[in-house]
Amino acid sequence: MTALEHLSTPAALIDTARMARNITLMQTRMNELGVKFRPHVKTSKCIEVVRAQVAAGASGICVSTLKEAEQFFAAGITDILYAVGMAPVKLAQALALRRKGCDLKIITDSVEGATAIAAFGREHGEVFEVWIEIDTDGHRSGVKPEDAVLIDVGRALHEGGMQLGGVMTHAGESYSLNTPEALRAMAEQERSGCVRAAQRLRDAGLPCAVVSVGSTPTALAAQQLEGVTEVRAGVYVFFDLVMANIGVCQPDDIALSVLTTVIGHQREKGWAIVDAGWMAMSRDRGTASQQHDYGYGQVCDAQGRVLEGVVMSSANQEHGIVSAADGSREDMAKRFPVGTQLRILPNHACATAAQFPQYQALQAAGEAAEWPRFYGW
Amino acid sequence: MTALEHLSTPAALIDTARMARNITLMQTRMNELGVKFRPHVKTSKCIEVVRAQVAAGASGICVSTLKEAEQFFAAGITDILYAVGMAPVKLAQALALRRKGCDLKIITDSVEGATAIAAFGREHGEVFEVWIEIDTDGHRSGVKPEDAVLIDVGRALHEGGMQLGGVMTHAGESYSLNTPEALRAMAEQERSGCVRAAQRLRDAGLPCAVVSVGSTPTALAAQQLEGVTEVRAGVYVFFDLVMANIGVCQPDDIALSVLTTVIGHQREKGWAIVDAGWMAMSRDRGTASQQHDYGYGQVCDAQGRVLEGVVMSSANQEHGIVSAADGSREDMAKRFPVGTQLRILPNHACATAAQFPQYQALQAAGEAAEWPRFYGW
Repeated sequence: MTALEHLSTPAALIDTARMARNITLMQTRMNELGVKFRPHVKTSKCIEVVRAQVAAGASGICVSTLKEAEQFFAAGITDILYAVGMAPVKLAQALALRRKGCDLKIITDSVEGATAIAAFGREHGEVFEVWIEIDTDGHRSGVKPEDAVLIDVGRALHEGGMQLGGVMTHAGESYSLNTPEALRAMAEQERSGCVRAAQRLRDAGLPCAVVSVGSTPTALAAQQLEGVTEVRAGVYVFFDLVMANIGVCQPDDIALSVLTTVIGHQREKGWAIVDAGWMAMSRDRGTASQQHDYGYGQVCDAQGRVLEGVVMSSANQEHGIVSAADGSREDMAKRFPVGTQLRILPNHACATAAQFPQYQALQAAGEAAEWPRFYGW
Repeated sequence: MTALEHLSTPAALIDTARMARNITLMQTRMNELGVKFRPHVKTSKCIEVVRAQVAAGASGICVSTLKEAEQFFAAGITDILYAVGMAPVKLAQALALRRKGCDLKIITDSVEGATAIAAFGREHGEVFEVWIEIDTDGHRSGVKPEDAVLIDVGRALHEGGMQLGGVMTHAGESYSLNTPEALRAMAEQERSGCVRAAQRLRDAGLPCAVVSVGSTPTALAAQQLEGVTEVRAGVYVFFDLVMANIGVCQPDDIALSVLTTVIGHQREKGWAIVDAGWMAMSRDRGTASQQHDYGYGQVCDAQGRVLEGVVMSSANQEHGIVSAADGSREDMAKRFPVGTQLRILPNHACATAAQFPQYQALQAAGEAAEWPRFYGW
């Protein structure tokens, strides 16, 4: 355990009290809606964080890479959905995980993909459990609920000898919204589209046990989830400034921040220069297109209190420029002398967290425990 | 060694022939200008790459984090400049490196910083070698060459018992230029400002042996470097699309690319979806403000040949959308079937490389050797 003032900077801080509150918020909401909750662990890539999600009631996890599946399976989690369309080159890696006892589910959204999975499965005597990805918002991948191809994909899997486990969708377009009404409508669009796809598969005589939906904004906005069996969400565990702009959290719910140290100033410009640049914050400028642009992040004092109107306005690789958001030229050398510690709330927690080999998890007593995280593929 | 088609994706490929050409280009230019060359290793963070730079004639290295200093010192490199303003909290780490025999140089640009270094040095009986950072372009940190504070900083170091080793500057503003004339002018501004600062220190009776300048664009544009003792540059080792827009390389000089696999399509939109998203490419959209916007990267075939007009137009965490840059809706399912490998040239090599735990270094025979890299602080 290290006291905050002795941490080398930049460091990725987790406010564990806020994290616990965020986990409880989501799990309680899912319990009320009567669905299982499968956290997307791409946000943290950290076993200590995921253990807290499981302890709160999560059922299985969702991953964005097979490396995540391998790491969390090694840590004892078996029910894993790999939620990126399966590339044929990765089937051997998925097979190895299943052979070790991992209950790994994979996804596809094309006849080509389904055929490749089935051929590989039959060749190796493995019945892969495959879910079909559904496009409910035009955002990215997936088969549209009414598309004739949906049944073709289902048949290619089922008749190809694979286990057609269900359907899943992710309404990523919810990230572009910012009113409760629009978010509720998107949650209902995500739900109804995915349920409709499941119904069409069942009407065609195909199995479809699971109906999986979710994104942090739609999960928190959904009013009812009839026909849905599980929800997935990731970034809620930390929240971030993009989520605050969407309206599903407040800045002081954000559990992840970057601890940084003031290393210099340009007085006449109203700049303090800190040792966290874009390598620490990531290049994510997700709030640039939202109603409140926080630059590279919202500046807080070392205790995590938001300093209204002060942002990281610009960044180089290992330098951040801290200044007034309105361009006024305060004497930053006086306000934040060399050596001052600050915390920066990130635009996008998934992107910022990925820049660090470990978190510093702040305990109630104010000391930090090191929680490792991994990266890569 | 792994054959390209068996690599799991996304993977960070180094075209070693291009890298060797880039290293030779820069070192030859520096030899012609009669200055030492100190590569900035923040771009690669990889000992195999840095060994090739040293073998070509580099004198010492420049780092952006003390972790880089530790890693490269452990690999046998002793002459290291840590080119980010020293934070007092990191002095113990710098001291430990020097005590092990590392010839580590640190920098500052303020009396506050200089005083903190000198106090710590005296307390621990260590004469730190310190260079003063000069601001020659208004871009970031540094004391202006004519600023009275320059002499105060020099005195705080020299009279404080430290070794005032020299001055250094980085004209990062060169990244916003794109004509040979403007780049030559910026190179001269960088040179003359730094030489002037050195002269002022010497005129005040202070030592100033080293005059260190550089950025990839100014290093390649400089016509003469009178008074300069060494040049630093980093991204030239790989180059990238930002550098191509600035005009200091061509796209087919770029030695770093991300190998990716097609995992699906949205035919009616003209999209191929690949398994490299922003987690692989980074969120860097550095070409967005330049004359040619490449989205998240320029698409090439698996052999590295540029596919004109095809870019990664959008990205999610682990999904990239490959489409025509002009918005035309080609049948990407026909052109790039599921399983097709593509290479994506990055906007910013430093940012993209940082997303990967290792490189796949392509040898002349077409096989890849794994070269580890590190990250974090």
